[in-house]
Amino acid sequence: MLTVALPKGALLKDSIDLLKQVGLDFSILLDNSNRQLEVLDSSKSARALLVRNYDVPVYVEYGQAHLGVVGYDILREKKPDVAHLIDLKFGYCRMSIAVKQESPYQSVLDFPPHCRIASKFVRSAREYFDSIDLPVEIIPLYGSVELGPITGMSEAIVDLVATGRTLKENNLVEIAQLYESTARLIANPLSYRLDLDQIQSRIIDIRRHIETPTTAVGV
Amino acid sequence: MLTVALPKGALLKDSIDLLKQVGLDFSILLDNSNRQLEVLDSSKSARALLVRNYDVPVYVEYGQAHLGVVGYDILREKKPDVAHLIDLKFGYCRMSIAVKQESPYQSVLDFPPHCRIASKFVRSAREYFDSIDLPVEIIPLYGSVELGPITGMSEAIVDLVATGRTLKENNLVEIAQLYESTARLIANPLSYRLDLDQIQSRIIDIRRHIETPTTAVGV
Repeated sequence: MLTVALPKGALLKDSIDLLKQVGLDFSILLDNSNRQLEVLDSSKSARALLVRNYDVPVYVEYGQAHLGVVGYDILREKKPDVAHLIDLKFGYCRMSIAVKQESPYQSVLDFPPHCRIASKFVRSAREYFDSIDLPVEIIPLYGSVELGPITGMSEAIVDLVATGRTLKENNLVEIAQLYESTARLIANPLSYRLDLDQIQSRIIDIRRHIETPTTAVGV
Repeated sequence: MLTVALPKGALLKDSIDLLKQVGLDFSILLDNSNRQLEVLDSSKSARALLVRNYDVPVYVEYGQAHLGVVGYDILREKKPDVAHLIDLKFGYCRMSIAVKQESPYQSVLDFPPHCRIASKFVRSAREYFDSIDLPVEIIPLYGSVELGPITGMSEAIVDLVATGRTLKENNLVEIAQLYESTARLIANPLSYRLDLDQIQSRIIDIRRHIETPTTAVGV
């Protein structure tokens, strides 16, 4: 049975809307009273696993899900062994460097060597500072990264920015952008190659749907 | 100013109750409408940082907080460079191995070499299986670890168990226990040694309070 790993949180609604338009209805997962992490679609022909966004590539990599929807930020951070298929164009955000408004460092070039950068995205941060050849100390955090500069623990943060509201509320400003991220459709490489459970026709449907705006008539 | 890092989630209420009894009132953090991550106590003589449980040792290690409250499970998993001061006796849970009720492996000795174990506590799991000399593949997950055995991705999980309700709901059974965990008071080693902001007298107060049941009269 076709199995899709879907991420809890910000990308869930758009993921479910998209799958609905290609005939897979998992809207039960949007129901607040739902506690199941494994559900069948309304036609009982496919299954969804509701997992943490960070875990989506794990289920896909191990073949427990044929397909998955996950942010590019996580693919870039974890580099899982999965096939990257389609940019789904929703869930836009950017990986940015931010500092306090009153920071003496208003450009990455101002950062002194060995300054401290707090981030949930340790690999992304490390790769960026390596690329500009600046040795920094990355402080790995799991949440509320904005507290790093506020408490003085770090000079800057590397974090995902969508609307910029959290930065603004915490008096932080973006000074550089590492990359942009959107939701991606990924597949287990073997399932994809062997076309298990006809996943290729599903992928073609999704691709066609993404490339054709909903309002257009025909393909 | 004395700064204490407090963990969001299950340990928060008991942590705040304890600190209140030694004269530090951070109960504003229990107010659902509070959005601040950094608050002063009602006497304005101390500050609390509200952070993810995993991040508590980071703020303490870097000296942004003099003291912190965190589960032993996290100290054991991350091995941060902090002083372990007091077992606070609340937040009891245990790190356990669980399998599906119908699993052919009803003891750790039954596990075949190279079987798969899903866990959020990769180091704890690795250390345990190393200690019994069984090579296993640890699958790191961030949430809903119980989906590992349910989907067939892993034979077992290593996870924290408090009441056992989640295991029961998912038809899993505990077959071994790695260690027990409770909340601990930790300190930044340098702040502790230098007695910054009189933290030692606070620690003595807390220790006295923990060792003397609330109902007892005198010390």
